[in-house]
Amino acid sequence: MNVKELFEKGSELAYQSCIPHVSVDCVVFGFHESSLKVLLLKMKGVDKWGLPGGYVKKQEDLDQAAYRILKARTGASNIFLEEFKVFGKVGRSEADMAHLPESFWQRQRFVSVGYYALVNYAEITPVTDRISESCEWKDIDSLPELMMDHREILENALHTLRRNINYSPVGLNLLPREFTMPQLQRLYEIILGKPLHRGNFQRKIHSFNILNKHDANPSKKAHRPPILYSFDTVRYNEALQNGLKQEW
Amino acid sequence: MNVKELFEKGSELAYQSCIPHVSVDCVVFGFHESSLKVLLLKMKGVDKWGLPGGYVKKQEDLDQAAYRILKARTGASNIFLEEFKVFGKVGRSEADMAHLPESFWQRQRFVSVGYYALVNYAEITPVTDRISESCEWKDIDSLPELMMDHREILENALHTLRRNINYSPVGLNLLPREFTMPQLQRLYEIILGKPLHRGNFQRKIHSFNILNKHDANPSKKAHRPPILYSFDTVRYNEALQNGLKQEW
Repeated sequence: MNVKELFEKGSELAYQSCIPHVSVDCVVFGFHESSLKVLLLKMKGVDKWGLPGGYVKKQEDLDQAAYRILKARTGASNIFLEEFKVFGKVGRSEADMAHLPESFWQRQRFVSVGYYALVNYAEITPVTDRISESCEWKDIDSLPELMMDHREILENALHTLRRNINYSPVGLNLLPREFTMPQLQRLYEIILGKPLHRGNFQRKIHSFNILNKHDANPSKKAHRPPILYSFDTVRYNEALQNGLKQEW
Repeated sequence: MNVKELFEKGSELAYQSCIPHVSVDCVVFGFHESSLKVLLLKMKGVDKWGLPGGYVKKQEDLDQAAYRILKARTGASNIFLEEFKVFGKVGRSEADMAHLPESFWQRQRFVSVGYYALVNYAEITPVTDRISESCEWKDIDSLPELMMDHREILENALHTLRRNINYSPVGLNLLPREFTMPQLQRLYEIILGKPLHRGNFQRKIHSFNILNKHDANPSKKAHRPPILYSFDTVRYNEALQNGLKQEW
C-alpha cells in the first residue's frame, strides 16, 4: 500500500468509527541519561515529525481514546496521563493536510485535546506501525521540525509540567523504582531548567515526606554504595491529590 | 415561538454555521457581599439550570467562541477567561436532550471545553435572551439543580481556581478597583474555603509586591477611613505570567 492508499484507508475507517472535528495529541515524557525525552513519530511520506495522536471513537470517552492511542504507541497501559490544554485555532491542522484529496477525513478542521504522559523510559518500547516510518525518543533540547502546531503543544505540556512541580510530586512515573538523591535532583533540574542547591533540594524533598530510604547493608568499607530511595506510593498519591502543602 | 420551535431554529442555525460535536461551557465567577457567585441560566421549558455555553463557528477559533458566548451573556468583552478542562464522556450531554427529535443538532454527542471567567460583579449585567427564562448570579454555597454534567464542570472550575491561587495572584478581575485589606482577605478565604490568619495573610500578600497603598488624606480624627489598596497592574500581570515566586 502506498501512502495515499494508507491515508484513504484511514479516512474510511475514521468516517465509520470516530466523531469528526475532535482529535487527541499526546506528549509522552521519559527521563534517560540525565535528560528529558519526548516520544515522536514520523509518518510515511511526511518530512516532519509529529506527536502520537488519533481520533475519538463514537462510543469511547475522551480519556479512553488517549489511553488507547498511547497503548498502541508504547505497549504500556498503566501510564500517568493528564489532559492539559485544548488547541482549537482555525487552520491549525488543515494546512499540513492540504496535499490530500478534499474529501479525506484528515482534511477537516480538528480541535485537538492535548494530554501529557510521564513514563518510565526503560519500560517502554516505541511502536512503529503501518502508517509510520519511525517512532523514537527525542531529547527536548534537540527536537526535529514538527508538523502542524505540535511544537506549541509540546511547549505547553512542558510549561504545565514545570508549573505542576510546584505543588505536585514528580518522579514516580519517570524514575526507576529505586533511585539516588542525585538522580532525583537531576530530574527536578531538567524539568525546571535550572540548577538547584543540593542542600536546599534535599531539605525540601524530605519535608514532603514522600520518600522511603533504603539503607545499604551496614558496612565498614570506605566506599559505601550510594543510598537508594523509593517513593512511598500512599503518601505520594495523597500529595498528588491534595497538593504538596497548604500554601496559605 | 414555542420551545420546540426555538430548539428547531437553533438546530438549523447550528448545522449551517458551527462544527459538530464540540461545545463550550463557561463558569463565570463574581464576588459580591462576601460570597462567591456563579452565573447560571435557565432555558425556557427546562427545569434545571445550566452554565452559559454554546458552539464553535466554522471560521472561529475556540477561544473566540468562548469570548463571544460570554459577551452575549454579560455584555462584557474585557474578561479574564481561561480554559481549564475538557469534558468528553460518552452520554454526558445526550441524556438531557433525549426529549428532542432525533435529527436535532442538540441530540448529538458533544465534547465540551470548560472555560472559567473572573469578572467584576458590579460591572456585569446578566442577559436573558429568547431561549432563556432567566440568567442570574447564584451563590456557590446554595446552587440549584444543574443540567447534564454542569455541576461537575463547575466543581472542576472551582478546584482549578483554588489550585491556581497558590501560584497566581487573584483579585484584579473580581474586586472593585480600590479595596480594603479585609475585602481581599475575605476573597482569598472564600476561594480557599477556610479562614486565614490576619497577620500571616497580610505579610504574605505584601511579600508578592503587587499592591499599591492609597493613603487616606492625613487627618487627626480618631476615626480614620480604612486604608484602600489597588493592584499594581504591571507587577500583577508579571506575577500572572511568571508565578508568584520561584518555589525551588
